[in-house]
Amino acid sequence: MPDGDIYPDLKQESLDLHEKNRGKIEIRCKIPLETKWDLSRAYTPGVADVCRAIQNDKDLAYKYTLKANTIAIVTDGTAVLGLGDIGASAAIPVMEGKAALFKKFAGIDAFPICFEKSDHIAAEIRNIAPVFGGINLEDIAAPRCFEIEEALQDLGIPVMHDDQHGTAIAVLAGLLNACKVAKKDFEDLRIVVSGAGAAGYAVARLLRCIGYNRDICTSVKEMIVCDRQGIIHRQRRGLYNNKYKFILADETNHSGREGTLYDALEGADVFIGVSAAGILTGDMIHRMNDNPIIFAMANPVPEIMPEMAKRAGAAIVATGRSDYPNQINNALVFPGVFRGALDAYATKISDEMKVSAAHALAEYVRRPTREHIIPRVLDREVTRSIAEAVRASAIKWGYSREFKDDNRLITNGL
Amino acid sequence: MPDGDIYPDLKQESLDLHEKNRGKIEIRCKIPLETKWDLSRAYTPGVADVCRAIQNDKDLAYKYTLKANTIAIVTDGTAVLGLGDIGASAAIPVMEGKAALFKKFAGIDAFPICFEKSDHIAAEIRNIAPVFGGINLEDIAAPRCFEIEEALQDLGIPVMHDDQHGTAIAVLAGLLNACKVAKKDFEDLRIVVSGAGAAGYAVARLLRCIGYNRDICTSVKEMIVCDRQGIIHRQRRGLYNNKYKFILADETNHSGREGTLYDALEGADVFIGVSAAGILTGDMIHRMNDNPIIFAMANPVPEIMPEMAKRAGAAIVATGRSDYPNQINNALVFPGVFRGALDAYATKISDEMKVSAAHALAEYVRRPTREHIIPRVLDREVTRSIAEAVRASAIKWGYSREFKDDNRLITNGL
Repeated sequence: MPDGDIYPDLKQESLDLHEKNRGKIEIRCKIPLETKWDLSRAYTPGVADVCRAIQNDKDLAYKYTLKANTIAIVTDGTAVLGLGDIGASAAIPVMEGKAALFKKFAGIDAFPICFEKSDHIAAEIRNIAPVFGGINLEDIAAPRCFEIEEALQDLGIPVMHDDQHGTAIAVLAGLLNACKVAKKDFEDLRIVVSGAGAAGYAVARLLRCIGYNRDICTSVKEMIVCDRQGIIHRQRRGLYNNKYKFILADETNHSGREGTLYDALEGADVFIGVSAAGILTGDMIHRMNDNPIIFAMANPVPEIMPEMAKRAGAAIVATGRSDYPNQINNALVFPGVFRGALDAYATKISDEMKVSAAHALAEYVRRPTREHIIPRVLDREVTRSIAEAVRASAIKWGYSREFKDDNRLITNGL
Repeated sequence: MPDGDIYPDLKQESLDLHEKNRGKIEIRCKIPLETKWDLSRAYTPGVADVCRAIQNDKDLAYKYTLKANTIAIVTDGTAVLGLGDIGASAAIPVMEGKAALFKKFAGIDAFPICFEKSDHIAAEIRNIAPVFGGINLEDIAAPRCFEIEEALQDLGIPVMHDDQHGTAIAVLAGLLNACKVAKKDFEDLRIVVSGAGAAGYAVARLLRCIGYNRDICTSVKEMIVCDRQGIIHRQRRGLYNNKYKFILADETNHSGREGTLYDALEGADVFIGVSAAGILTGDMIHRMNDNPIIFAMANPVPEIMPEMAKRAGAAIVATGRSDYPNQINNALVFPGVFRGALDAYATKISDEMKVSAAHALAEYVRRPTREHIIPRVLDREVTRSIAEAVRASAIKWGYSREFKDDNRLITNGL
């Protein structure tokens, strides 16, 4: 493990940190509870009037409760980090860590909800949604992650699978800047995505329809997605068993190319890997157009090591790793996206909002270079930029909740 | 509303408090997240080792995550305060207030889970249980509250419906001290419980089998439960439609008395009302034994007003109200019970643990008097006494979780 080499004591230090603190988040009471008067206002009998107000108008939960600033981080533990299907209990440390990041970088109160395996997770999330202003789906295996997210888009609060869209937004941001550096026109790009899991699916769908000018439906020139069996195309057998691969076949590869990743890369400008270690070779890069852009994001070992990619002529290389330049990391994205969505009282996180987030993230790098196409560190300023863009986009495109009382509620902001 | 008279501005002050603070609880990050090293320990890549450890031994979630100190406050909003079936969203302020009390008085991290109406709540709670060290069921209408609680007793963590058992424990504590003051022997008591809802059912069952000597199966002499139709007895029609009334018929009223509440009170020592305003008259008290004990806990208007009860000869009167002496309030109970259960890593909250809690609460009043049979205010000392008793009882009676690694985990304590 590369990061293990950098921090030799990391394992024990991590265990110690978690044991000493009994996890990473806690509940804090944010009102006074010293006197009888305090209790009367916060609990019985005063709270009854607050309940009645919400009973008459459910939206007042945004005004009077934790809802407006609270999201659930929901997993079923089936695809946790690179560890796979480790179950709900073993997933808790990741969800709690994510909750800590949400609080630290976006001021959002996030609570982990770790489901035992269930065939009804979407319905069960729906049943516990009243407390939450948003749902961050996390580390759920494909294709269930698609099904759950899709089933909940009418919930009236943002529901986003971060492994998909956080990654896709970060990739789009990196690619926008990579194009500037490599002097490629976004609309002329031929892109090959390697990997059709959660991240690959979302990357392909976001890039396919999103152009440089911030509006929907300016597409890149060509998008081809490969999975373990090679290029996804409409004539391929077995596609009908998997709705999501069928959608990819329908929406990508309009020239009907067939074959392997090797065949796909012929004449491509961009390789985006969300697949497996070492599957991209220098030879394959040679088949690509001039100044190829390589995002090799398999973790911990990328599809090709950056040194090798550069030797093969890559103009720009990005990975998911912190020990190389250009780390494409959804941690740059999710705090700002949810902050902006909550601040807009958004009813969903739309493609327009995702594109806005990507542009804001890209523009945060004032002068992109080969080794700096994406912000290096997670900080509240990045979050703020993304949040503002997402909030504005939600309002512009009509995804901001209308309240009966006509007074837009104040937002928590950052 | 009596408390409204005491605090004329309470409604507006409550609404203002809730609006200004956007609810009452928030998530706090309790670890440092400043440097790359911090992130590596708390999140990726270090967190992976913590996940793997828990994957190998689920119990390590108690050691490395929020679980050991975290409970869910679960409702479906069907019986909130005296407001009835107001729904999940309108229930949030009560659950959040309870979470605030849990933190303030017991140092417990409690998070509100408010379910939309569902026929599968028990199963759905089971599915989200991995994060929690306990489940506080709250404001769920009977008989569903019984079914849900019963269905979850094998979950391996304490699951307690507070409206039932918090109330029952407080009643038992009050009654233990009332007996001392009124010079009655607990085992000789003839008790009439008015009300066979959530609280009535739990009170009857706890008092029926619990004697003064802290052991199970020393019973009071006679227990009769009345509902709207009068005395519950084995020959009554329609009992088979309601499993829980059938259980009451089976476990109480061994002399087979029939009739109304009026008939039940003939020769009784204790009236415990968890029913409706004004249903007890002075006349009815006259039918009771000498020095009758009256717990009239309907809210906000009791079964009989304390002045009237005293005029009719009541030796001791308790209500649920804060503006009279002897307020029987489950808020005295739940923080300590869950604190003790969590500190023992209890697998459930057993009758023995409830009885211990009641004794600890009773003994907290060093010299009980007519007007002081129960502690007056909620404070951390009451919680501490109850917690210690419950913890010890859990260990004594074998409800404390055994850990594989044989090191009893340190507890959070108070």
